Amino acid sequence: MSSSTPRLANAVATFGPLCVGLDPSPESLANWDLPDSPAGALEMCSVVLESCTGLIGIVKPQVGFFERFGASGVSTLETVINDAHAAGLAVIADAKRGDIGSTMAGYAKAWLTDGPLCSDALTVTPYQGFGSLEPAFVQADVSGATVFVLCATSNSDAETIQRATLDGQSLPATVARYARERTGTTDTVGVVVGATRSLADSGLDASDLEGLYVLSPGFGAQGAELSRLREIFGSASARVIPSVSRSVLTDGPTGVREQIARHLQELAL
Amino acid sequence: MSSSTPRLANAVATFGPLCVGLDPSPESLANWDLPDSPAGALEMCSVVLESCTGLIGIVKPQVGFFERFGASGVSTLETVINDAHAAGLAVIADAKRGDIGSTMAGYAKAWLTDGPLCSDALTVTPYQGFGSLEPAFVQADVSGATVFVLCATSNSDAETIQRATLDGQSLPATVARYARERTGTTDTVGVVVGATRSLADSGLDASDLEGLYVLSPGFGAQGAELSRLREIFGSASARVIPSVSRSVLTDGPTGVREQIARHLQELAL
Repeated sequence: MSSSTPRLANAVATFGPLCVGLDPSPESLANWDLPDSPAGALEMCSVVLESCTGLIGIVKPQVGFFERFGASGVSTLETVINDAHAAGLAVIADAKRGDIGSTMAGYAKAWLTDGPLCSDALTVTPYQGFGSLEPAFVQADVSGATVFVLCATSNSDAETIQRATLDGQSLPATVARYARERTGTTDTVGVVVGATRSLADSGLDASDLEGLYVLSPGFGAQGAELSRLREIFGSASARVIPSVSRSVLTDGPTGVREQIARHLQELAL
Repeated sequence: MSSSTPRLANAVATFGPLCVGLDPSPESLANWDLPDSPAGALEMCSVVLESCTGLIGIVKPQVGFFERFGASGVSTLETVINDAHAAGLAVIADAKRGDIGSTMAGYAKAWLTDGPLCSDALTVTPYQGFGSLEPAFVQADVSGATVFVLCATSNSDAETIQRATLDGQSLPATVARYARERTGTTDTVGVVVGATRSLADSGLDASDLEGLYVLSPGFGAQGAELSRLREIFGSASARVIPSVSRSVLTDGPTGVREQIARHLQELAL
């Protein structure tokens, strides 16, 4: 896993940018008649991984759905990450971690080094300051991974914090500026920008995202249409990684591959 | 664990507010000649827990130092939490989690229900909006736990985000206002406010923290003096839970109890 080749870029170059979520929520497991347990989560993820193989290049486990079972759920996630890598898929660990100093270094070690949770990208949260995330950036530089910093999220409550401004700039634009300054010519730092509202409504301009990978949830079940990606992101579209989760699960285990194929068609429109 | 008695309040009423961190960082383990492994972390935490018993009422495991080992580290943390409870100590899981909807509910289930990581309080991060944390507040209401929302943190990078303002109010003051509105007469919601700078320098006034539990790191090794707690927090002091971590480890395993006793004296000054 120690390599300076940006691993996400490799996946995108081979399969395109579509990312499929691994979201074994209680609701999804019930819909699939699977037990709400680590075994149920593993079964669901195995089906989704098999359906992704050869079609797309990136999966995104939602860590909270594993962590809710404690260590046994985290152990299941280790298996899922290992299985994804064995199937040639890049993994974005959607953990939204954030802390300072040696604690942040602990999270970077967990998710971005050679350990059992080692992923190709990690989502992080910037409330404690952009610079507090530096231990993750340093580790990502070493291993060719990408750190996606929460920037403008797609949930309705987001604006209670993200509408804040700093030196006349919106909080999302501030985060994006720090990300552009830090990422340099590699893919070390990206941002998370939801797709359910316009960039302008999030206090962003497409130029704020220039050169950054943009992980964008909110497609599929959450309402944004993949066919409108270029309209939403404008000149930043080429580096957007759209993520779909619940929508690929709606037709049960046998329908996942067809749902993914449908999303790929929407993205190509 | 299902009870409507605020568990943190019980601990404070019996032993006072001092909280001791459980921080098995690589540096601390090396200083104690312990292996940088889950077994080393467990050994360090066992010594600290034993030294706390009967002296203080609250411990705070720093989750990143366990998670860095993957599932085996999380399993160790389960043991540590169980041992702390068996010793009559309340546990603040310093996990700084944050997400939306069913994912946030997943984190609430992990840390605030009957599972193996069940704690008496949890730290969370508000970047995705204060309301996004509601699933944790709901679970805390049920189980008598407290959710500490990051408000003004003690690290030097914090101001790159926390200096932002919203409707003329600082971001920390905004978070504190939401916390006051949500917590009501129980201890459901508290805030994290670092002690290494003045409240004014963090964009806060003591009245912003009225009625809230305030978890305050930054004491001991990070520079703030426990004897100055009342000076720093003014009228909010009565509900401040000061946390010390590295400073209790400095004299090795045999010195922990003495260091805690020293901190208790400083706090009483």
